[in-house]
Amino acid sequence: MHILITGAAGMLGRKLAERLVADGHLGGRPITKLTLQDVEAPPVWGSEETAIFPVAGDIADHVLVEHLLAEKPDLIFHLAALASAGAEAEMDKGYRINLDGIRGLLETIRKANYAPRLVFASTIAVYGAPLPDPIPDEYPAAPLTSYGTAKAIAELLLCDYSRRGFLDGIALRLPTICVRPGAPNAAASGFFSAIIREPLAGKPAVLPVGEEVRTVFASPRSATGFFLHAATLDTEALGTRRALPMPGVSATVGEQLEALRQVAGDKALALIRREPDDGIAQIVAGWPRALEARRARELGFVAEASFAEIVAAHMEDEYDGRPPILD
Amino acid sequence: MHILITGAAGMLGRKLAERLVADGHLGGRPITKLTLQDVEAPPVWGSEETAIFPVAGDIADHVLVEHLLAEKPDLIFHLAALASAGAEAEMDKGYRINLDGIRGLLETIRKANYAPRLVFASTIAVYGAPLPDPIPDEYPAAPLTSYGTAKAIAELLLCDYSRRGFLDGIALRLPTICVRPGAPNAAASGFFSAIIREPLAGKPAVLPVGEEVRTVFASPRSATGFFLHAATLDTEALGTRRALPMPGVSATVGEQLEALRQVAGDKALALIRREPDDGIAQIVAGWPRALEARRARELGFVAEASFAEIVAAHMEDEYDGRPPILD
Repeated sequence: MHILITGAAGMLGRKLAERLVADGHLGGRPITKLTLQDVEAPPVWGSEETAIFPVAGDIADHVLVEHLLAEKPDLIFHLAALASAGAEAEMDKGYRINLDGIRGLLETIRKANYAPRLVFASTIAVYGAPLPDPIPDEYPAAPLTSYGTAKAIAELLLCDYSRRGFLDGIALRLPTICVRPGAPNAAASGFFSAIIREPLAGKPAVLPVGEEVRTVFASPRSATGFFLHAATLDTEALGTRRALPMPGVSATVGEQLEALRQVAGDKALALIRREPDDGIAQIVAGWPRALEARRARELGFVAEASFAEIVAAHMEDEYDGRPPILD
Repeated sequence: MHILITGAAGMLGRKLAERLVADGHLGGRPITKLTLQDVEAPPVWGSEETAIFPVAGDIADHVLVEHLLAEKPDLIFHLAALASAGAEAEMDKGYRINLDGIRGLLETIRKANYAPRLVFASTIAVYGAPLPDPIPDEYPAAPLTSYGTAKAIAELLLCDYSRRGFLDGIALRLPTICVRPGAPNAAASGFFSAIIREPLAGKPAVLPVGEEVRTVFASPRSATGFFLHAATLDTEALGTRRALPMPGVSATVGEQLEALRQVAGDKALALIRREPDDGIAQIVAGWPRALEARRARELGFVAEASFAEIVAAHMEDEYDGRPPILD
């Protein structure tokens, strides 16, 4: 089978591509071709079973999208996005990538007339305060950022195009992904990962909010699991409501820090500098603190059960279990 | 003050324009100019106080929208739309008018940089089955038509542009407007009005669904009242959630027919021919049966209290109280 990933140079896109190549098959079918799109061409690596085709270009460019769909990939993961702080700072660019991007993709799929499975990376940023705790599955999207707005719009389009039979779409409302490896991205949520990742690497980190701030987390490993599960799920069970809040761990910043302390001690905590930032505090104050995610759990989506498990997943995936701070 | 109405040749647009000209003022300010846009130029009529400027053109045409905004109207009513059955039959045209139309309008307002009040005619078609009865204010938009999808998207954009301070928007989720005078439009809900309007005029009507079908209604007079109230409301009270379900009367088709019988007798009912239509039945089966509309009621939006009042409003507004069937 031929799989397309948009936004494949992003952290989640790379993890997903690596996993697909490592597995070599999905739902019992061999993965023969993997097309990886991003603004800059994603890195290529070898596999005897899976040929990788990197494509560099703008997801909002219709010619590029027609090129990506020309061979009718059997499965599409749409991850391309401009993240929250970026889309808030550059409104036009954000709507172009986060709204026009998926609209062009859906239209091109419609014209290709073969109704493939499309797995879309949506976000809990579709929700905005005031919010119940936890948020039930049947709760309105009322975003407080242009990023969340464009993602909520994309979900509505995905549902309508699926209802009309042009594709078989499913949108995953991802919790805050933590611990993100590598360099920070333009997301306002970046510090949630930095306060774990940087100390484990023996480096300083900045904490811009108070310890009482709480949100809901899943590891990059869980996110990859969500994508793969969504790719092979029987979508009949979804009905017409194809945007699903994903499960995750609800934890405060204080609980994050305690999980860090338990594996890396007080010297890890000493690397965190508190620098309150009202802008970031205001954005995250409007975020979900916990999600019910009943439908997703019933459909077999699985996340970690504690923040300690999330830290352990990071240490295993990035350091084979032994981060630099322990040396 | 200068007021712009888009979709001003539609039934609600005409009623609203007539009311504004008759009143001559709004919120204590004289209405000096009324710009009326529609695909074909709306009719012009005289008033010494209010100058009327009809503009013919496509709401999705950026040049037209720039022309409409050139003099920075103080207040904008955005009613232009392709109705539900029309947008379902012609998907591209529907999204162009119902989505690109408001997006271009919002962008043009943003560039004009003066943050006017915008009152947007949304719809209960943003909801789709399965639905609670009544629907609480905090319930997700999950539309089952492309019309409802585009309206839900428009609300999200309106909220985001308002949050960013580019305009002061409010979206009214209108119940089924009944009794619609004049010719049927392309809405799947057309029969709800036809089964009252046509018999009162002494003409036959077709009923395509069963008597147990129930939805929520408001008269054209109430809809005009909603628009005017929204135009002068203090939007501080809305917070960031600017899409409001409007109040209305929840009634079955059977209750509609009984209200008709009480004013016009069995000879009116004899004019109704039952012709089940599965397509229409399927669309309306997914519609709201009742709305809580708690926020709207608290904010002072008022609708009729019974379907008999809705029939009475129709007879007063269209026939000075005495419809042809009574002669």
